[in-house]
Amino acid sequence: MVDHPQGFPQPVDGSVVPRFAGPASFMRLPTVTSPAELDIALIGVPWDGGTTNRPGARHGPREIRNQSSLMRRAHHVSKIVPYELARIADLGDVPLNPIDLMGALATIEAYYQTVRAAGAIPLSAGGDHLTTLPILLALGRDRPLGLVHFDAHSDTNDRYFGDNLYTHGTPFRRAIEAGVLDPKRTIQIGIRSALYDAEEHRWAKDVGIRIVYIEEFGERGAAEIAAEARKIVGDGATYLSFDIDCLDPAFAPGTGTPEIGGLTTREAQATLRLLRGIDFIGADVVEVAPPFDPSGTTALVGATMMFEILCLLADRVAARRS
Amino acid sequence: MVDHPQGFPQPVDGSVVPRFAGPASFMRLPTVTSPAELDIALIGVPWDGGTTNRPGARHGPREIRNQSSLMRRAHHVSKIVPYELARIADLGDVPLNPIDLMGALATIEAYYQTVRAAGAIPLSAGGDHLTTLPILLALGRDRPLGLVHFDAHSDTNDRYFGDNLYTHGTPFRRAIEAGVLDPKRTIQIGIRSALYDAEEHRWAKDVGIRIVYIEEFGERGAAEIAAEARKIVGDGATYLSFDIDCLDPAFAPGTGTPEIGGLTTREAQATLRLLRGIDFIGADVVEVAPPFDPSGTTALVGATMMFEILCLLADRVAARRS
Amino acid sequence: MVDHPQGFPQPVDGSVVPRFAGPASFMRLPTVTSPAELDIALIGVPWDGGTTNRPGARHGPREIRNQSSLMRRAHHVSKIVPYELARIADLGDVPLNPIDLMGALATIEAYYQTVRAAGAIPLSAGGDHLTTLPILLALGRDRPLGLVHFDAHSDTNDRYFGDNLYTHGTPFRRAIEAGVLDPKRTIQIGIRSALYDAEEHRWAKDVGIRIVYIEEFGERGAAEIAAEARKIVGDGATYLSFDIDCLDPAFAPGTGTPEIGGLTTREAQATLRLLRGIDFIGADVVEVAPPFDPSGTTALVGATMMFEILCLLADRVAARRS
Amino acid sequence: MVDHPQGFPQPVDGSVVPRFAGPASFMRLPTVTSPAELDIALIGVPWDGGTTNRPGARHGPREIRNQSSLMRRAHHVSKIVPYELARIADLGDVPLNPIDLMGALATIEAYYQTVRAAGAIPLSAGGDHLTTLPILLALGRDRPLGLVHFDAHSDTNDRYFGDNLYTHGTPFRRAIEAGVLDPKRTIQIGIRSALYDAEEHRWAKDVGIRIVYIEEFGERGAAEIAAEARKIVGDGATYLSFDIDCLDPAFAPGTGTPEIGGLTTREAQATLRLLRGIDFIGADVVEVAPPFDPSGTTALVGATMMFEILCLLADRVAARRS
Amino acid sequence: MVDHPQGFPQPVDGSVVPRFAGPASFMRLPTVTSPAELDIALIGVPWDGGTTNRPGARHGPREIRNQSSLMRRAHHVSKIVPYELARIADLGDVPLNPIDLMGALATIEAYYQTVRAAGAIPLSAGGDHLTTLPILLALGRDRPLGLVHFDAHSDTNDRYFGDNLYTHGTPFRRAIEAGVLDPKRTIQIGIRSALYDAEEHRWAKDVGIRIVYIEEFGERGAAEIAAEARKIVGDGATYLSFDIDCLDPAFAPGTGTPEIGGLTTREAQATLRLLRGIDFIGADVVEVAPPFDPSGTTALVGATMMFEILCLLADRVAARRS
Amino acid sequence: MVDHPQGFPQPVDGSVVPRFAGPASFMRLPTVTSPAELDIALIGVPWDGGTTNRPGARHGPREIRNQSSLMRRAHHVSKIVPYELARIADLGDVPLNPIDLMGALATIEAYYQTVRAAGAIPLSAGGDHLTTLPILLALGRDRPLGLVHFDAHSDTNDRYFGDNLYTHGTPFRRAIEAGVLDPKRTIQIGIRSALYDAEEHRWAKDVGIRIVYIEEFGERGAAEIAAEARKIVGDGATYLSFDIDCLDPAFAPGTGTPEIGGLTTREAQATLRLLRGIDFIGADVVEVAPPFDPSGTTALVGATMMFEILCLLADRVAARRS
Repeated sequence: MVDHPQGFPQPVDGSVVPRFAGPASFMRLPTVTSPAELDIALIGVPWDGGTTNRPGARHGPREIRNQSSLMRRAHHVSKIVPYELARIADLGDVPLNPIDLMGALATIEAYYQTVRAAGAIPLSAGGDHLTTLPILLALGRDRPLGLVHFDAHSDTNDRYFGDNLYTHGTPFRRAIEAGVLDPKRTIQIGIRSALYDAEEHRWAKDVGIRIVYIEEFGERGAAEIAAEARKIVGDGATYLSFDIDCLDPAFAPGTGTPEIGGLTTREAQATLRLLRGIDFIGADVVEVAPPFDPSGTTALVGATMMFEILCLLADRVAARRS
Repeated sequence: MVDHPQGFPQPVDGSVVPRFAGPASFMRLPTVTSPAELDIALIGVPWDGGTTNRPGARHGPREIRNQSSLMRRAHHVSKIVPYELARIADLGDVPLNPIDLMGALATIEAYYQTVRAAGAIPLSAGGDHLTTLPILLALGRDRPLGLVHFDAHSDTNDRYFGDNLYTHGTPFRRAIEAGVLDPKRTIQIGIRSALYDAEEHRWAKDVGIRIVYIEEFGERGAAEIAAEARKIVGDGATYLSFDIDCLDPAFAPGTGTPEIGGLTTREAQATLRLLRGIDFIGADVVEVAPPFDPSGTTALVGATMMFEILCLLADRVAARRS
Repeated sequence: MVDHPQGFPQPVDGSVVPRFAGPASFMRLPTVTSPAELDIALIGVPWDGGTTNRPGARHGPREIRNQSSLMRRAHHVSKIVPYELARIADLGDVPLNPIDLMGALATIEAYYQTVRAAGAIPLSAGGDHLTTLPILLALGRDRPLGLVHFDAHSDTNDRYFGDNLYTHGTPFRRAIEAGVLDPKRTIQIGIRSALYDAEEHRWAKDVGIRIVYIEEFGERGAAEIAAEARKIVGDGATYLSFDIDCLDPAFAPGTGTPEIGGLTTREAQATLRLLRGIDFIGADVVEVAPPFDPSGTTALVGATMMFEILCLLADRVAARRS
Repeated sequence: MVDHPQGFPQPVDGSVVPRFAGPASFMRLPTVTSPAELDIALIGVPWDGGTTNRPGARHGPREIRNQSSLMRRAHHVSKIVPYELARIADLGDVPLNPIDLMGALATIEAYYQTVRAAGAIPLSAGGDHLTTLPILLALGRDRPLGLVHFDAHSDTNDRYFGDNLYTHGTPFRRAIEAGVLDPKRTIQIGIRSALYDAEEHRWAKDVGIRIVYIEEFGERGAAEIAAEARKIVGDGATYLSFDIDCLDPAFAPGTGTPEIGGLTTREAQATLRLLRGIDFIGADVVEVAPPFDPSGTTALVGATMMFEILCLLADRVAARRS
Repeated sequence: MVDHPQGFPQPVDGSVVPRFAGPASFMRLPTVTSPAELDIALIGVPWDGGTTNRPGARHGPREIRNQSSLMRRAHHVSKIVPYELARIADLGDVPLNPIDLMGALATIEAYYQTVRAAGAIPLSAGGDHLTTLPILLALGRDRPLGLVHFDAHSDTNDRYFGDNLYTHGTPFRRAIEAGVLDPKRTIQIGIRSALYDAEEHRWAKDVGIRIVYIEEFGERGAAEIAAEARKIVGDGATYLSFDIDCLDPAFAPGTGTPEIGGLTTREAQATLRLLRGIDFIGADVVEVAPPFDPSGTTALVGATMMFEILCLLADRVAARRS
Repeated sequence: MVDHPQGFPQPVDGSVVPRFAGPASFMRLPTVTSPAELDIALIGVPWDGGTTNRPGARHGPREIRNQSSLMRRAHHVSKIVPYELARIADLGDVPLNPIDLMGALATIEAYYQTVRAAGAIPLSAGGDHLTTLPILLALGRDRPLGLVHFDAHSDTNDRYFGDNLYTHGTPFRRAIEAGVLDPKRTIQIGIRSALYDAEEHRWAKDVGIRIVYIEEFGERGAAEIAAEARKIVGDGATYLSFDIDCLDPAFAPGTGTPEIGGLTTREAQATLRLLRGIDFIGADVVEVAPPFDPSGTTALVGATMMFEILCLLADRVAARRS
């Protein structure tokens, strides 16, 4: 094992090689083929087979990689340089079949079991939100996980179009049913949008999920909400899922189910930063849909949120090591 | 008259029929031809003949209908399901001539007289802001109305291009002159932008209009401003006019006269929700101009604001009934 | 049965009601719910579950309807006014589940069996090209059909992603295997693009399909190719399938699998017009993908090609009647 | 009068001042305020009050000026350098009221009477096609003009929306009725698109207009059509009107009434060049609508067609002088 | 010298001449050729030769001029009408060579020396941020200037690509080294984005620059930060530089190095207004890159910020005069 | 050396891994670091420092790689599968400094000397056209090369902006002066656009370059022009340079200096295919500028033209081997 930073993979430096040049890997990091070399694996999940309205999140990983060329090394607030704390690289994309829903779910789950077995923490770029389900199945197999979940939607619906259990509106219900997600250690932040019916969130609340509507977030602010999140997930293993539609469409128009009245990027960043120290064992940024993103800023937001999360994860890796 | 919810028109459910499928009516509601069947009539006013700079609001109703496919049934804060409280449907578009200004004004006025006579409350999608004038003429004929007016501009100018009395910068002056709008029961929220001259708002203030500049809104907040609005309009019949350019162009770029430094969607939504209980007898969302809206989010904002307002109107209908 | 034109459904006239106003049905025709009232049914198939790369064709029907507002009544070359020759209306969209591939194929097939049973000729707007398969299964059940097929791709591949038999690259192979399509009465026009392998078209040629590459089309011209098409399909029942990607991306950028070097719209229109008199029992225009169509021209092309085909179909209806 | 080239206004040279710098006048020429200094006046007519569907041509002059920064001095085929043959400059925009149809028509007519009285040939950038009517009224007052007219539409309809005589679909009928346009010396090139009814062109043909449909153009080619045009207009004073929608939307998507299956730019340029020597006393390029032109190429086409026409006009000025 | 307002240049009035008509000069002001006639000169600097990633700011001045057509005369908060307080006009663009970095820097410096010698205060529209360096060299030659600097980046890096001293990431370091900028009278507002390394801002802080990160701005607010800025720059001559990327990309996507989590336009406007009274001797708005601005709002923001600054400068001119 | 196809690098198969997944290398080929392993090296040259108007070609290689995901293996006309004939891979981008013109030229020249020394034929994606100069300097050092050059412009100007010898309008003049390009073995195809002066092409013609204007191409056709090209370049070593602006902007809007009236993609492809057998020792596709390409089709055209050329080069490699 590499035990000092010098041997860790490092991003290409934008003051040496222009940001528009060279291959577009996540954060301009090297691409590797085995998770065993890594503490944190950056992974693309190019799949949107669970999308019920506007597709396109399958193109998310490529555009997030493109825009991640704008990222730099050191966080300007925490001063964390994740690449000095952990071995991080681009592990590529999960190989998926765009037209086989159940097959894709199985492939994702198997892929993340391998990543987990190798000891790497996955930080993923979706893909639609259904892709989070098989990741949770892989990471939460032996004990239920806590969850900090940024989203406009609770994604705990039961079924769509008659009898479909698997869509991007149902992953967390399925994960709770499967026992890989602990609803009492789950907090959802930024929820809003009209509902299918007034009781749509009843199930979620009944099983113990804490839903923080955007209105409550606006009143109480990032610090209070983050403190509550830390309390809810506690010390146990926790997953972080960041649906880009938690943000207002002014900040992130390129997504499948935009809902106005959302978080600003500053609010989301402030909240994320206050989650430092939680025992995150995986994370994702999902629902970036490039065909609906004419200026490319949504993918830029996605890439930056990945960097924010990467700092949390690398800090955690370093803390565990010492 | 239908006296229980079961017979009311209902939107197509997005978990049954995908949101991209089927005709794009307002809120996926049925289309009807007679206002007599309705408590609230959703109406398009595809006309921008009063626009002095960037045209395109004539295309607003169609794109707002398109984006309203993303709407759902129940408000996540108030839990209001308007379709259970009132008979609501899409009444179609006012049939207008795009090149005949005075003719269009007359047609709109006559159309809304019919709607009013049928007992339906109109919630309209513009069209430019001049379309509000003939609506006020129809609805305020027998007593002046109060007005809650969201906008970047006061729209109380006197004339343009020499001697033109009718443009989208003059409707409220004309309405006051016609006696259908009570300036002392009028509040304008979000006003900003440089002025034609420093005394441009003198007339408005002199006749008693309360102008809340965005700076004051920012300092005092939605709760105080909404409380003042309720006090100003009082118990009398009141109209609600929401010019999409009250919002910052980050949230609503697709409009004819964008002004930076505007309301956020959250601020606007918060203010709207606090207007519950006012005796609204009509409302509109105007100035959505799709040709200037490459990502489509402005029309989405327009559709969502219509839903927010619809909840207010339906709540009022239910209150009147009981 | 209506036996003279006056009772036929007619489009809204753009010199009476502006083209941007009113509901966006196909060709501004009335919407009906039963195919039994119609000679020709215009149908949307909002589904792209067979798309292997860039999705979005599910949004095609709505945008084609929008752009079809620009259509007028009478063909300027043939002088055909289809609405005087046949009863034509918008039958709405096939109700489909976007995430259930096999279910959607079954639903489409059943839907078109009903249309066929009602005696209406379907003219459909896709949707991806896999939607043509269940239509052929419904229309060709009792005898194999001939086919005039405009496309950049032969769409006769065998399988994708291992073992997937049903994608937008395989419909015609499946249709031939099912006995609903007669390969010897099939002509494909505009084929080009690099191949998966040099023998990719071997199967198609072996079973008797006539492939007209774009290069041959360019050399011989529309008249010769159309004449050959007429000879190949003969007098029997024939289907017409127009994949928008037969056109060069300059003319139709908004599609999932663009291939440069394609037909011009003039070439395609010229060829279509020369197919008059063939016994078409159905037709479609597929693969219009609005998210990739920033100027909206691809949907306009789709709507215009539907009008061209509608003239052929209406002429045929009139010929059969007399 | 300036009688040798050295004193003529010259464009800014793009190899001296970059094309993106400096004010965006037509062809980077100086701006002047009096037509008396000019042989040919380049004029903007920012007005689209006659547009019945998609507005935006009011923004045409500014964007055409912008894109005309890409123009150079010498025609690569004819070797004509118009700025050496004639005094040419940007005369600015006609001052117009966007919401007063009849007033705008009167203002335009008066403006062009002044230009004509000053002895300058006007080359105008629209604006919608109704703007051509008052120009013809000004230029053809004392004898009817011949016309070479490129368009997708004949624009000889009678009225719209009941009783409206003045729209962008009626200018040439009005001009003929007013006696300023000689229908027997009028040729229309590129006509296509479906018709309001099969007899829509009857009036035009009855009064003697020669309509060259795109199909005929495609068969006979630029040389034959141009030869016929020369014969039809003869030696008399002739106007040239170039509606950008004569081109296929692949070449010019940014226009109000696009019609597929149109001219290519090469065909249009070839035809224009063969019109050299006709006694043109004015010309225009109309219907460039920037809000529908995301890549800006339509305005570039407009600017280039203006340069092509400018070469014809300057050549004519020089011929008259010698 | 003109000593009363009536003789000052005035913008074209949008209620007299439509905003889309006429030449697009800054604020619709007259264009002049000599700075000697002016108190404040509006200048374009169309150059982006210092841009290390996404170019396009060379197109900024033209698009800012275009969008500045939307500006009006009187500030709605301060009631300042700059055109009544000072002689202000559009001085055109600095004539620059896009491919000669050192030559362009020299040309800009010489140009602004002339402007300064003429007694005019320059308010410039960039161009990339390197263009600020030669302006500072011209204006600060005889005493170091104070600086209020809005930006996402400190722009005090040392070198790029090995040994390049002059890029848009280095201007303020060069200016301090040259003695024209006083680091102790310099405040940077809105700084954020990850860093090349954790010590990237060490040099800036060591020389005395006050860096206000966006997080501190968010906590303390515009009033406190503006008060501190006033204290830091004191009574001495001060420059104001507004990099559009200080704003969040939701408000200003069209820029070369967007960074999420930035200022809102309201925050920026509030801060600017509180700087009234500082002895500003020049200002700029830079880094507007139109090719990345599909809706045009970034240029609108740039134009409006120029108007905000213009009010500060004109107020200062009037104060000096009296 | 690998002497049979099985060991050659192969593209990822789109029917196995979806085209939107995985890294975006040229043609989905492996990336290698040494040209010594290759017969043909695909190289990006992300640089536009010679661009005098609209920059952005620096972003070309990345977007061409993205769109090349749509490419397949076998040419549908020639049946050539280049990957079976030659060892081909993505060699990455030349490491360049965007703000150092002369340095970049030197770096490119050195890079291609290495490629040439390794025995690999370079097929490059620009970048602006000035990048072709140092490539020619590297490849033509020991004997002047022939050139088949597709372009709208001759690119043989002498200087710009006073005394600048090196811009994207001058590379071929410089190459001829340096003796690396044989003007008598040079043919330019598609030339058009107005000229700086009527004698602009004099120098080119005087030194013996054969200029085929688009008008001549249109009249004589691809077969005759290609035959002449073959005759002109003869049996000697020849370079192929394909400036995307040879195409009409309808086909390729995303370029820095668009000129209307250009080649169609079919014409360009037909011409390229007829160049089979020429002794090409290198080639490039340049001037794809993604910021001006909202639909992405220009990069798709660039990728497809690279595939067309790749077939020519691979065929030549195979011919030399046998």
